Amino acid sequence: MLAALLREDILRFLREDIGGGDLTSEAIFAAGATGRAEFVAKEPLVCAGLAWVAPLVFTTVNPGICCQGLADGVQAAQGDVLFQAEGPVVDLLRAERVALNLAQRLCGIATLTAAFVSRVEGYKARVTDTRKTTPGLRSLEKSAVRAGGGVNHRFNLADGVLIKDNHIAACGSITEAVRRVRARAPHTVKIETEAETLEQVRECLDCGVDIILLDNMDTGTLAAAVETAAGRAILEASGGVTLENVREVAATGVDFISVGALTHSAPARDISMVMRPL
Amino acid sequence: MLAALLREDILRFLREDIGGGDLTSEAIFAAGATGRAEFVAKEPLVCAGLAWVAPLVFTTVNPGICCQGLADGVQAAQGDVLFQAEGPVVDLLRAERVALNLAQRLCGIATLTAAFVSRVEGYKARVTDTRKTTPGLRSLEKSAVRAGGGVNHRFNLADGVLIKDNHIAACGSITEAVRRVRARAPHTVKIETEAETLEQVRECLDCGVDIILLDNMDTGTLAAAVETAAGRAILEASGGVTLENVREVAATGVDFISVGALTHSAPARDISMVMRPL
Amino acid sequence: MLAALLREDILRFLREDIGGGDLTSEAIFAAGATGRAEFVAKEPLVCAGLAWVAPLVFTTVNPGICCQGLADGVQAAQGDVLFQAEGPVVDLLRAERVALNLAQRLCGIATLTAAFVSRVEGYKARVTDTRKTTPGLRSLEKSAVRAGGGVNHRFNLADGVLIKDNHIAACGSITEAVRRVRARAPHTVKIETEAETLEQVRECLDCGVDIILLDNMDTGTLAAAVETAAGRAILEASGGVTLENVREVAATGVDFISVGALTHSAPARDISMVMRPL
Amino acid sequence: MLAALLREDILRFLREDIGGGDLTSEAIFAAGATGRAEFVAKEPLVCAGLAWVAPLVFTTVNPGICCQGLADGVQAAQGDVLFQAEGPVVDLLRAERVALNLAQRLCGIATLTAAFVSRVEGYKARVTDTRKTTPGLRSLEKSAVRAGGGVNHRFNLADGVLIKDNHIAACGSITEAVRRVRARAPHTVKIETEAETLEQVRECLDCGVDIILLDNMDTGTLAAAVETAAGRAILEASGGVTLENVREVAATGVDFISVGALTHSAPARDISMVMRPL
Amino acid sequence: MLAALLREDILRFLREDIGGGDLTSEAIFAAGATGRAEFVAKEPLVCAGLAWVAPLVFTTVNPGICCQGLADGVQAAQGDVLFQAEGPVVDLLRAERVALNLAQRLCGIATLTAAFVSRVEGYKARVTDTRKTTPGLRSLEKSAVRAGGGVNHRFNLADGVLIKDNHIAACGSITEAVRRVRARAPHTVKIETEAETLEQVRECLDCGVDIILLDNMDTGTLAAAVETAAGRAILEASGGVTLENVREVAATGVDFISVGALTHSAPARDISMVMRPL
Amino acid sequence: MLAALLREDILRFLREDIGGGDLTSEAIFAAGATGRAEFVAKEPLVCAGLAWVAPLVFTTVNPGICCQGLADGVQAAQGDVLFQAEGPVVDLLRAERVALNLAQRLCGIATLTAAFVSRVEGYKARVTDTRKTTPGLRSLEKSAVRAGGGVNHRFNLADGVLIKDNHIAACGSITEAVRRVRARAPHTVKIETEAETLEQVRECLDCGVDIILLDNMDTGTLAAAVETAAGRAILEASGGVTLENVREVAATGVDFISVGALTHSAPARDISMVMRPL
Repeated sequence: MLAALLREDILRFLREDIGGGDLTSEAIFAAGATGRAEFVAKEPLVCAGLAWVAPLVFTTVNPGICCQGLADGVQAAQGDVLFQAEGPVVDLLRAERVALNLAQRLCGIATLTAAFVSRVEGYKARVTDTRKTTPGLRSLEKSAVRAGGGVNHRFNLADGVLIKDNHIAACGSITEAVRRVRARAPHTVKIETEAETLEQVRECLDCGVDIILLDNMDTGTLAAAVETAAGRAILEASGGVTLENVREVAATGVDFISVGALTHSAPARDISMVMRPL
Repeated sequence: MLAALLREDILRFLREDIGGGDLTSEAIFAAGATGRAEFVAKEPLVCAGLAWVAPLVFTTVNPGICCQGLADGVQAAQGDVLFQAEGPVVDLLRAERVALNLAQRLCGIATLTAAFVSRVEGYKARVTDTRKTTPGLRSLEKSAVRAGGGVNHRFNLADGVLIKDNHIAACGSITEAVRRVRARAPHTVKIETEAETLEQVRECLDCGVDIILLDNMDTGTLAAAVETAAGRAILEASGGVTLENVREVAATGVDFISVGALTHSAPARDISMVMRPL
Repeated sequence: MLAALLREDILRFLREDIGGGDLTSEAIFAAGATGRAEFVAKEPLVCAGLAWVAPLVFTTVNPGICCQGLADGVQAAQGDVLFQAEGPVVDLLRAERVALNLAQRLCGIATLTAAFVSRVEGYKARVTDTRKTTPGLRSLEKSAVRAGGGVNHRFNLADGVLIKDNHIAACGSITEAVRRVRARAPHTVKIETEAETLEQVRECLDCGVDIILLDNMDTGTLAAAVETAAGRAILEASGGVTLENVREVAATGVDFISVGALTHSAPARDISMVMRPL
Repeated sequence: MLAALLREDILRFLREDIGGGDLTSEAIFAAGATGRAEFVAKEPLVCAGLAWVAPLVFTTVNPGICCQGLADGVQAAQGDVLFQAEGPVVDLLRAERVALNLAQRLCGIATLTAAFVSRVEGYKARVTDTRKTTPGLRSLEKSAVRAGGGVNHRFNLADGVLIKDNHIAACGSITEAVRRVRARAPHTVKIETEAETLEQVRECLDCGVDIILLDNMDTGTLAAAVETAAGRAILEASGGVTLENVREVAATGVDFISVGALTHSAPARDISMVMRPL
Repeated sequence: MLAALLREDILRFLREDIGGGDLTSEAIFAAGATGRAEFVAKEPLVCAGLAWVAPLVFTTVNPGICCQGLADGVQAAQGDVLFQAEGPVVDLLRAERVALNLAQRLCGIATLTAAFVSRVEGYKARVTDTRKTTPGLRSLEKSAVRAGGGVNHRFNLADGVLIKDNHIAACGSITEAVRRVRARAPHTVKIETEAETLEQVRECLDCGVDIILLDNMDTGTLAAAVETAAGRAILEASGGVTLENVREVAATGVDFISVGALTHSAPARDISMVMRPL
Repeated sequence: MLAALLREDILRFLREDIGGGDLTSEAIFAAGATGRAEFVAKEPLVCAGLAWVAPLVFTTVNPGICCQGLADGVQAAQGDVLFQAEGPVVDLLRAERVALNLAQRLCGIATLTAAFVSRVEGYKARVTDTRKTTPGLRSLEKSAVRAGGGVNHRFNLADGVLIKDNHIAACGSITEAVRRVRARAPHTVKIETEAETLEQVRECLDCGVDIILLDNMDTGTLAAAVETAAGRAILEASGGVTLENVREVAATGVDFISVGALTHSAPARDISMVMRPL
């Protein structure tokens, strides 16, 4: 993601958090006071955003702040220093909350994704996200999914076709829906279609869709779908997937497992900022 | 929150989700096709944003869409229709994801807040949020806390003073920190100060701070602080509060209990959009 | 494209064209004077944007202006009225230049696209655009390509993979480049790869790329590539395609012919605005 | 034009072209890989924007990229290196398309303008642009006209008065139109008035307008207008001017010749970006 | 000024004034409570912005509010109702401060301008403003000058040439400065040049500048400049003009008198908002 | 105030003042010409913004300009150099007007505030501002009030409660109004209530409001209110306060005196920019 574009978002976040000014710190600290801020993990976590998002928050507040953070995907233990920044104390404190709010959320997503990924180890299935992201944070959250070892699904409605039940109902059949989309969508995107039954899977295969989203199927049906498809389409299992059942889903042989909770319900990882004298 | 200001955020969210256009729906639906979209609760939840945020998403896509939603704070059961919108099908589908992503998150926060509030019933303690909100969504998330029966803490660094450990360390004492803040901050905001020990509580009382944030104290110390303060300051318990221990904290007699998890870790409530023919 | 998003662009365009105000019209017309403005084709053209872009310009200036325009794709003759708007004269004149500048450009693109499309009639090849669009106008220009009967290539760098010579050089081989992309890009987008020789076409086929961009090949080589691929990949001819040679290119049997000139060099179509009394 | 303001536009263009990220290059290049990008002229052209617009695109992507380009107005031959940039390969590729799209367009305008200017050599007439520019790019396009040796007409409706047929019709006479404008417009702008006949030219002269726009007159009438004016007003010929007839128009003795095609129909000049190892 | 553009500024002003919400009014008023707000003049004033700026503030808060205000230039007495708005009480109070702050300032400027204009009655001199306006409010403030009977000077650096002492010093002479500007500036703007002595006035006349700004001259010198110019250039007196001496300046026969204080030092006129039950 | 946020405003101001470019300076100065600009006080003043706002204007135009200015609150004499900047002459002139317009206004506010503050010397009363600021400039203007020795009142409607006559009327009593606000507003803000009579003062004290705004009371009533309150609430006098009567108001023993004129009617201080060769 382009730093210059991300910086525009960060400016908005800082405006939201700082408003007219930091009444407390501006009253207390001398203008010249400098220090070092450290982000410390209060629990184990997978890093995301510490090497590029957090630094951008601090340097947006003051371009003179020096930053260093752990790379995306690093597994950190409780007590590890994840990120550090040196500069004027008032500016470190101005950046603190926005940087922590982002870091805790992104590490939360990466950590949860990594948990799913580790559960499916040994199977070919890859864990993928959805469009169920926080409005305004999609690019960041999708990068956190990658940091956790997952892969991204489409970013928005314009970079992938996904034919769902409402579309099928409006067309009368999957076949007709696919036909209409083929006539208009760029040839550069794949066509994915939801299927809720094996019969629909077969119809999808017949019209040559690229990806079949197997929606809310039990593992028996999933396995049958895999057998039916026999490699003629990418298969993506979706709906009701949890840490408890994901391995079982992977065992059916699907190619992808999409999990909305990666981004809509990952609890924040606990990180705190500690100030050190220089 | 001013609708015209919220609309600017929603435009950004729609731009993020729609990008160059909805390849699928634009290919499939006739321009004139209309329908009714319903948001259905897939699990019990406390409503937030359904009567004003979701409608604003749909009318930003198309001002001609008619919307109606349940009021903030309403307790909904599984299967309840939370919100409905009538208009062109393509526009309903364009608005779907952003509206759902917001609604699921806000209802998640309201529902979790309501759970905390119900646990402290019978005590005077009120449940309050923090600045640990999603960057870009603070006003919305704080309204969801109110929908769940909680009360808001300060919105940003400019509308309240909160003297923390770093500030105290830089000044040498709570007394000096309070003195510096009094000399500069508007007389219209209250001064809140963190205290980690009873001794600090006493120092706070001596310099007449308005609110004392009792940071990570065990319930015994909290109770002692309440006794020490004897009504001379507002007391706010903070740190490590969970659904399991919140009632015990309330029983100490504190005035407020702040819970960061309300906004940083509330899981999304499951809501789905169903299309009906008109 | 979402009207609310397009309106933001149009506001910027109006600000650019109007600046502090229309010195001339504001001095001359009485506030209440109303009239009808008509866009008249000064030469034959294919319509684009007249039914939705031009109206948005006029209603952004004044929501009370009533507009009506010909649908995208309509073939208009010299002298045809393409669009009309009724409302306060001063507002019609304020909107004039921005609306005309957009309409002339979009109709220019649609007309040029239609010329290419008509040349390849009878062949399966479809005419497609590129990313060589006017900065700030991509969505509009791509819609004009569709209005002219063309199809769109990817909208931006995030919604399609296109491996070019620089990528291949950095990887040492097409095979390695494809491998790296497969490991990271969403499974929802297709992989397109540039090939300049038949050998490269074969390497592309071997690694299963979805689309092969046949770059600057003569028609003999194109035909050989079609034979080699034998339907195993989508073939897109690119480079040096003109109205003069496009039919010959289509005759080789390729699936798509991309033409940068559709958007970067289409001359504006001549349209003028005529005021009528009401 | 202020770099900081232009940068805001460039950010928007980059957002449009890059979207969520460059799927291809981010997958292929190592983070540290650096290189040199060169813009090479594929045909002769007059330079515009290569010394200041292109650098701004690249440094907006990454402030650490070093750039150098040929000055506005330089005549380049096929094969000339017009611009070069050194830095991380991924960032060079991210900037490529936006920089090229702008450079090709601006050089196209400068080259066409220079062609018009060279045709009128020996006459006093100067070639000038119009408001028929690409929405969002007016300042850039007007600078390209200057690069080609042309001069600019007014930038927007607020920095010059131009009384056209609709204004005259509404007032009943040129005289009344001029009177109304004089009563309200700043004394710092000149008053220009369209005239379609010699009689109107005389009326313009009688009311002392500063500039007369001779609209769609044949060369005989133009010459008569020049004689009639006898230096009492600036004369600007407009309408239907082409490379073929511009010299004939200049020969009539007019002061300015305005050509909408300079900006609305200049074909892009062909420029390609070549990557070199450092 | 275009309402849609002004609305963008007003949104920013509302965001500044309202922040996260109106804590007081939102707590006190029932959602459905409606009322009428009246702006009452607490002292005599000349109206500006009441018929179009104030309504735009209220309708930006809530498009359903009905507004009516006195036209620009109307002379109001103490106690007069200048503007009224009907709608939800909470929304009327949300708009109050921004609308009043704008109205008081604009009426202040109009009133001061009218005072200057009345002082020069009987002379041909017109009172004009400068670029010494409040950053962000130039268009509004210049409209208030017109409301007070003044005329506008150029809006910005791009719509008029003003050669000042620094420019002259850099060129060595007025003549050379004018030559350089003539070679580059659009022929549609006038050239104005500062002169501090009669000798400079003569040099200006010799090179045919359109307007001479007579800078800080005493009235004797001004009169001599008028005589010297003898109608060959527009003469504008500037510097140190007050209500006390403006008539004396006008008596010298200059065409324009520019007064920076109109916009940089006009005291606000006292207006208060009164709520009435419906 | 965050420099990065202020820079966004300054960009808008520069766009307003510069428009398409500085026709005069761009034509006259060679690209490489450099110089030093000095801001010189033409009358005594209290500095505000010279050390941080003016530099930000110049560095926004060109980051390479070196700036230095006097600190907020410094008392400067006529002829003092307040600020200097070195860099390219064209860029210094581009920044001149915006920087001066801001500096003159902010110094005007600081100077007027300092005059009020000096009048109340010896009394405990502090001079405070209001929300009657220039739309778009509130943070800057409030910093100028601090520079002049004043203190700030609330920044916006969200960071303080102020119950006014309309609120009281809607509730039937002060007591009920306070009750409603207490139930909803964050516990971190103070409650301020307007009182116009001693009876209302007593009601305020009875319901424990934090601050009582004594609205338009004569000094006798103010003194009685001070006696009545006896330290149980902060007392703020408001309405009709001038330099002439402020000392008399302070003598009544109130804690704060709020003066709208500090920001809505402070005349600009006269500052001029002088260019020096390097």
